[in-house]
Amino acid sequence: MPFDYIPPLLRASDKRIVLLVLDGLGGLPLEPGGPTELEAAKTPKMDRLASEGMLGQTIPIRPGITPGSGPAHLALFGYDPIHYEIGRGVLESTGVGLHVGVGDVATRGNFCTLDSNGNIVDRRAGRISNEVAAPLVERLKLISVPGVSTEVSMVKEYRFAVVMRGDGLQPDIDDTDPQRTGVPPLPATARTPESEPTAELYNQWIAQAFEVLADDPKANGLTLRGFSTDPNLPSFQSSYGLNPACISVYPMYRGVSRLVGMKIVDFPGDKPEDEFAAVAKVWDEHDFFFVHIKKTDSKGEDGDFDGKVKIIEGVDTALPNLLDLEPDVLIITGDHSTPALMRSHSWHPVPFLLWAPATVRPDDQTEFGERPCARGSLGSFPALDTIPLALAHAERLEKYGA
Amino acid sequence: MPFDYIPPLLRASDKRIVLLVLDGLGGLPLEPGGPTELEAAKTPKMDRLASEGMLGQTIPIRPGITPGSGPAHLALFGYDPIHYEIGRGVLESTGVGLHVGVGDVATRGNFCTLDSNGNIVDRRAGRISNEVAAPLVERLKLISVPGVSTEVSMVKEYRFAVVMRGDGLQPDIDDTDPQRTGVPPLPATARTPESEPTAELYNQWIAQAFEVLADDPKANGLTLRGFSTDPNLPSFQSSYGLNPACISVYPMYRGVSRLVGMKIVDFPGDKPEDEFAAVAKVWDEHDFFFVHIKKTDSKGEDGDFDGKVKIIEGVDTALPNLLDLEPDVLIITGDHSTPALMRSHSWHPVPFLLWAPATVRPDDQTEFGERPCARGSLGSFPALDTIPLALAHAERLEKYGA
Repeated sequence: MPFDYIPPLLRASDKRIVLLVLDGLGGLPLEPGGPTELEAAKTPKMDRLASEGMLGQTIPIRPGITPGSGPAHLALFGYDPIHYEIGRGVLESTGVGLHVGVGDVATRGNFCTLDSNGNIVDRRAGRISNEVAAPLVERLKLISVPGVSTEVSMVKEYRFAVVMRGDGLQPDIDDTDPQRTGVPPLPATARTPESEPTAELYNQWIAQAFEVLADDPKANGLTLRGFSTDPNLPSFQSSYGLNPACISVYPMYRGVSRLVGMKIVDFPGDKPEDEFAAVAKVWDEHDFFFVHIKKTDSKGEDGDFDGKVKIIEGVDTALPNLLDLEPDVLIITGDHSTPALMRSHSWHPVPFLLWAPATVRPDDQTEFGERPCARGSLGSFPALDTIPLALAHAERLEKYGA
Repeated sequence: MPFDYIPPLLRASDKRIVLLVLDGLGGLPLEPGGPTELEAAKTPKMDRLASEGMLGQTIPIRPGITPGSGPAHLALFGYDPIHYEIGRGVLESTGVGLHVGVGDVATRGNFCTLDSNGNIVDRRAGRISNEVAAPLVERLKLISVPGVSTEVSMVKEYRFAVVMRGDGLQPDIDDTDPQRTGVPPLPATARTPESEPTAELYNQWIAQAFEVLADDPKANGLTLRGFSTDPNLPSFQSSYGLNPACISVYPMYRGVSRLVGMKIVDFPGDKPEDEFAAVAKVWDEHDFFFVHIKKTDSKGEDGDFDGKVKIIEGVDTALPNLLDLEPDVLIITGDHSTPALMRSHSWHPVPFLLWAPATVRPDDQTEFGERPCARGSLGSFPALDTIPLALAHAERLEKYGA
């Protein structure tokens, strides 16, 4: 349980919480003294919410640590990623929409290039394109191992994911990637006796895969890494008494949300207004809504400062669709920073806005931006505190002790 | 390991970090509304760094806890002093430059006054002066116990330190100080069977010491406390992937630095410019530089507000020598506060300045001082976070998770 002391305090309530995550929201100025992406964006609606609400900044994982998307979202959901580890195979599979249930074993795969002796000459098969890799993945999907079922999916370029399902599978298996060239891929080797049958089943799958790929000029081999299973996380329902919905375009975030028990909402379109329309559609069925906007992060990773500004402005423009639903608590934040200046995720704190008309203690900040957030009354705090704060402002928690 | 999650994230880098510690930097105004020592000091160079960088304030150990110098530096180095205890004997010995290696047993000693029955009448021997104590310590140095070697050093007034070296020594031994008068000093008594031979060796040393001191009018006895050995701390190299150098005039800080694996740099002179010249001299051989300025603390303990201001101004004047080296990350902070008003260490938070031209998210603060630091974008945070923040801003850490 993320917070042992919370379940006994939970109170029945119909108050609704919206957690709006602009992926990679935090930024940096392009030049000293300049504005960040969020500060440069014209966001009259978020600024009004900032005036009425409270600002702060979150530390996603630990000070100085740059989070990946999976751990960053786990932290926002209250699950300390240092404590709750999710295997790489599960994250990769979940990220492309493969379901990893309890007892399934997921792994991430790389195509590689082998020489005539079976030794690896390129661990990434020359970084083949999606177009080259896709038909190879289609052929891997046809492999059949007696007693289990397997599901395979493209990830990107030379990367793919495999999930094996069956009875008694165990994931304690070493990577088959030797992490260097000039040697053959390793067999799947169990670290525990219980995992030996699973390693053997994967070796059968690998043997067939090598036959299937044998004639390909670049991708005539593969390696598997990050064998792992469903982490069996305590659910949002049991941890927070919430009936949560996930509204996200990208499979990765839908996957992490599914791991904590969220209902995944399908909807047409991929714009902020489409996502907010999806929230409206399921508004009566849920009391917690995780809404994920991906493109702030994508533009940041592209180094496209102005593009990131425009995405933020687009969310601001669409915001009335969300506000019209009259959420009791609205949090607008990111999972981490992705400054366009750095073209990557970073460890910098993340702007955080909490709006809750009935219970907020407003500070003196009037704009949503990194500098106002650093001065906001919520201060700097771990992203892990997000859901407890939301529950409190939704008046969903009883007093602790007499 | 101070941070288990950091070693797997370490990335090869030649970026250099300077941690400039002005001992006891934090202060208090002499009268309400007045400036602190740091605020009163004219520090144009630090103010420029503050404008370009980020400010915050650190909690050295835990809120409300006034640290000693040893724990305060351990915390700055990322070793939680509540978890990583260094024995008092080791700290005292290290503080006066005695080396305590793995397997050595160190202890701190007090001269005391005994009556004709051998009972303690003054546990501090009338607080004899350094001049009186020094020749007594010289005589203690001549004591020889078969099978081991001992090293003795003056600390201050009635205090000294002893380190015993030999095979199989163990430090689980009770203090010989009964903590009251009217009774004799206790024998060294082992708390474990493994420590019994060591206690016996120390009792041989004590018996000879009593003979040596017998005729002294005040210091005719002694007690030993804080038996302890090298804490075997994980090194900076293994914890942070850093190759660190310590530039410090005072033995205490060189000693704590040695315990975490720093190279101790010898250099002539004792002024800030001498220390910065020493940094320049070893700049190519290291990537982390701990530079310690003692006199801010000394002036604070003297209650000399203006003297402390002048020391800070002297560091500011010498700063270009350090900046000319073009560190990638420069942190200027203290290990704790030593307000001249209090003439002692205190628990108050410590001003913290982080300057890193490539990666800093500037706040709106333009001066280095306690008030600007309390408003800075780094907020209030544990001193323990110092090194992870430095590593992040030196871009020495990979992303955590996918």
